Amino acid sequence: MKKSLVAMALMGAFGSAVAQSSVTIYGTIDAGVSRTTHTANDSTQIGKRDNNKLGFRGVEDLGNGLKALFQLEIRYEPDTGTLENVSRPLFQGQSRIGLQGGFGTVRLGRGLSAFQESIIAFEPWNGLPAVAGYQTNLQVAGYTSDPLSAAGNSANRFSNALFYNSPVWNGFQVNATVATKEANGNPAIIGRGTATAPQYPANSEASANPYSVSATYTLGKFAAMAAVERNGVETKLWSVAASFKPTTALKLMASYQEQDQGHTVFVNPETDAWVIGANYTVGPGKWLFGYGQKSPDGVLKTKQVSVGYEYSLSPRTYLYVDLAQKKTPFTVTARNTVDQNHYALGIHHNF
Amino acid sequence: MKKSLVAMALMGAFGSAVAQSSVTIYGTIDAGVSRTTHTANDSTQIGKRDNNKLGFRGVEDLGNGLKALFQLEIRYEPDTGTLENVSRPLFQGQSRIGLQGGFGTVRLGRGLSAFQESIIAFEPWNGLPAVAGYQTNLQVAGYTSDPLSAAGNSANRFSNALFYNSPVWNGFQVNATVATKEANGNPAIIGRGTATAPQYPANSEASANPYSVSATYTLGKFAAMAAVERNGVETKLWSVAASFKPTTALKLMASYQEQDQGHTVFVNPETDAWVIGANYTVGPGKWLFGYGQKSPDGVLKTKQVSVGYEYSLSPRTYLYVDLAQKKTPFTVTARNTVDQNHYALGIHHNF
Amino acid sequence: MKKSLVAMALMGAFGSAVAQSSVTIYGTIDAGVSRTTHTANDSTQIGKRDNNKLGFRGVEDLGNGLKALFQLEIRYEPDTGTLENVSRPLFQGQSRIGLQGGFGTVRLGRGLSAFQESIIAFEPWNGLPAVAGYQTNLQVAGYTSDPLSAAGNSANRFSNALFYNSPVWNGFQVNATVATKEANGNPAIIGRGTATAPQYPANSEASANPYSVSATYTLGKFAAMAAVERNGVETKLWSVAASFKPTTALKLMASYQEQDQGHTVFVNPETDAWVIGANYTVGPGKWLFGYGQKSPDGVLKTKQVSVGYEYSLSPRTYLYVDLAQKKTPFTVTARNTVDQNHYALGIHHNF
Repeated sequence: MKKSLVAMALMGAFGSAVAQSSVTIYGTIDAGVSRTTHTANDSTQIGKRDNNKLGFRGVEDLGNGLKALFQLEIRYEPDTGTLENVSRPLFQGQSRIGLQGGFGTVRLGRGLSAFQESIIAFEPWNGLPAVAGYQTNLQVAGYTSDPLSAAGNSANRFSNALFYNSPVWNGFQVNATVATKEANGNPAIIGRGTATAPQYPANSEASANPYSVSATYTLGKFAAMAAVERNGVETKLWSVAASFKPTTALKLMASYQEQDQGHTVFVNPETDAWVIGANYTVGPGKWLFGYGQKSPDGVLKTKQVSVGYEYSLSPRTYLYVDLAQKKTPFTVTARNTVDQNHYALGIHHNF
Repeated sequence: MKKSLVAMALMGAFGSAVAQSSVTIYGTIDAGVSRTTHTANDSTQIGKRDNNKLGFRGVEDLGNGLKALFQLEIRYEPDTGTLENVSRPLFQGQSRIGLQGGFGTVRLGRGLSAFQESIIAFEPWNGLPAVAGYQTNLQVAGYTSDPLSAAGNSANRFSNALFYNSPVWNGFQVNATVATKEANGNPAIIGRGTATAPQYPANSEASANPYSVSATYTLGKFAAMAAVERNGVETKLWSVAASFKPTTALKLMASYQEQDQGHTVFVNPETDAWVIGANYTVGPGKWLFGYGQKSPDGVLKTKQVSVGYEYSLSPRTYLYVDLAQKKTPFTVTARNTVDQNHYALGIHHNF
Repeated sequence: MKKSLVAMALMGAFGSAVAQSSVTIYGTIDAGVSRTTHTANDSTQIGKRDNNKLGFRGVEDLGNGLKALFQLEIRYEPDTGTLENVSRPLFQGQSRIGLQGGFGTVRLGRGLSAFQESIIAFEPWNGLPAVAGYQTNLQVAGYTSDPLSAAGNSANRFSNALFYNSPVWNGFQVNATVATKEANGNPAIIGRGTATAPQYPANSEASANPYSVSATYTLGKFAAMAAVERNGVETKLWSVAASFKPTTALKLMASYQEQDQGHTVFVNPETDAWVIGANYTVGPGKWLFGYGQKSPDGVLKTKQVSVGYEYSLSPRTYLYVDLAQKKTPFTVTARNTVDQNHYALGIHHNF
């Protein structure tokens, strides 16, 4: 404390008189050995199961139940020490500033859309991008929330957005996200156009304001969600999900999504997907089970079954094993499929 | 503390026996809704008014009044989570290490030049890069302190520099910055050359050591500044400024700058600019008023008038509204002007 | 604490219920004035002597002598505020997660290879990349641990690796590192191929798993090391080193390395190097002396002699002077040499 006062005086003298607040540094580091057959990673790899985060956040009590809050979240790859993707923003995870009070929470910046934020609770791997999980590919039917950002950028976040979370009324909560039409440096998207005249030329603005709305409800052992979202190229998605806990150790869950790409795709614009799963806790161990399939109309289904086990060494650290088999079309238009087998063994640490 | 001792022992065993000091994490996050007519941002945007910072700094007391100090400052965009500019350094804000004692403060690295550091106190938006403010364009007459850095890099910092701030003698202080001639990866600058034989080819070194000197004086309600600076392409700038506080609530200020680009420009190498402004505090609110103009000789003037209001929710957090009108030449050589109208509404939080 | 609990509750509500641990922020900032004749830096520069780091690390006690630990280390240039090299990872220094217990320490991710981690203690500049030091060029005979990473990437780290450090048995310790064959985006390496058919095309995988093993032994005033390493292009290196402390103030050290590039080079594939040095402490001062030479067979030797002095202002901060002369072949194939003279004067601060 004393030292930081010295710092204050000093920095004040330099014209940056910033009061020190309690900034919380947090993060996740997850690394393991994995392999997925019939993919570019069909050899033993040092990989990950979760997103890896290094974040900074803070909350300031403004009195009268009002709070100011911010959060900045770096995402990185522990196996090489790089950011998640060379073209991703430094704060790929999120960068938001806002106010919280009786009215709920309002934030500005970049973060998960209302739909993506809500669906996580109904996915057996809790929304992890694990190969054995369903959130990345099956649960959102391969849907992209942010197609008009730089290549390789986030698939489930809005940039330049306003985020609202209502208070919880008797277990009921509404969440909404609306983004501006600002261009974010995307590559051209041919869509219903041609290579020479793409429907969305490079660095296009959204043709309509992207939005996402979700409602969640919790009553004792039961929880449910409904959401609708439209992205920058007017692809629409709606989703419903529910979970039930017959015992404190067991959680059953199911979700359904439907995506309509009619605005950018001529043929087979519809895709639907459903996922069922269970989490079962035994002492320090937790079992994860899931099955799901994705059905682009007129194209072969993608089916996945997987099982995972997490062994807690502490509330913050666990070891894990994942096994999964995914039956996927060899190419989107192919009429035959390939079985991708996946295993992963690793350690997950929150700090 | 106990934990960090464990960490110490452990890391020591790994050969990185670094003693933990009190590193202060600080920063600013500012986001709002804004629009500026007749510009590329002529639509509702999620934007910013201030630079957004995430910094790390520390001070070590070495005894006998001697201190070691360092500061590392990341700059980012909250609306997209990216660094300020893809070509800007990670620590665009500053990266400096130095000593402070009876002799003043000496630092090495990258940071604001002496002129840029001093002028801030005489600008009605306190040096913020806000569109409604004057520092970026009018107050420094569009002058660039660092033209020989990578494209898009800082306009008011020196890299590879030595920074000196004298002690304050009876309200009087001298500040000086000198940079080396190291090349920093700049694009070619044609200047008085030709496209094929630019005056400064890509990745040029400075033709003379860039320097910046400022003197500031404070006496009761009165403060003044004088500064002179020469950048890497030998463009010279001098500036005088003063402020007066008739009451504690009211601050009046004025500044004048003149830039001479004779070394790189054939015609109209001179530009002068002046800005007047006032800050008026009423309870938790603060009004900002400004008017200024920039006169490149032989080219139409740029004129700007603006008003801002800041409402403090706490010493660290405020809401703001900015309104500005800027009459600017449509192109540098044009003989007609356009009125750019700007509004911004947002929240500013220091942590 | 109170604030961070508020933060917890809040963030929990946002679905990121991460418990806050004691994350230690640490780092090094080193800047000075330097010059090296007959090089691209043959003018007065603001440079560095050590790597500059900003790191985050933590240790969690899991009970029963078991600990979880992680470390993330940014590397940057204080003179310009940039990352060390535009193509280097954000966490160039290291990014590792692991467990420590009676069995030793096991980590996954990216970090110094076992050889590189061990040799530092036998180098008179303690492994600093200082021009006056020997680690970068002479001590490892210009050997590269990671030739198959992106251009400009680390020369002495493994990515995608498993790291093991044994417990210390009566002063004896074994360290081992093994990496996967994952491709890391390297440029093509011609090797024994041709420009059109390089031995290692761009983004090649290792032809064999890179590994590094070292054994260290300490007995009173005496310490020794032996190591062997093979990198991703099957270049082999072995090394032995020893140090002796006749008094607590004096440390004498010597090391020998031999590199065999037979797998990628037709002619003169062997290089050997040796370095002798001494450190002598007098009050707050420390003298560093070194001499070494590198002998690529059939090519002129590189010889270097250097002296350094460190004056401690505190346990964490010192001023330094380095003087060195390096007799080096003007080009690798040349038959004549040039004397590069180097001086550096600066400040080094750990935080």
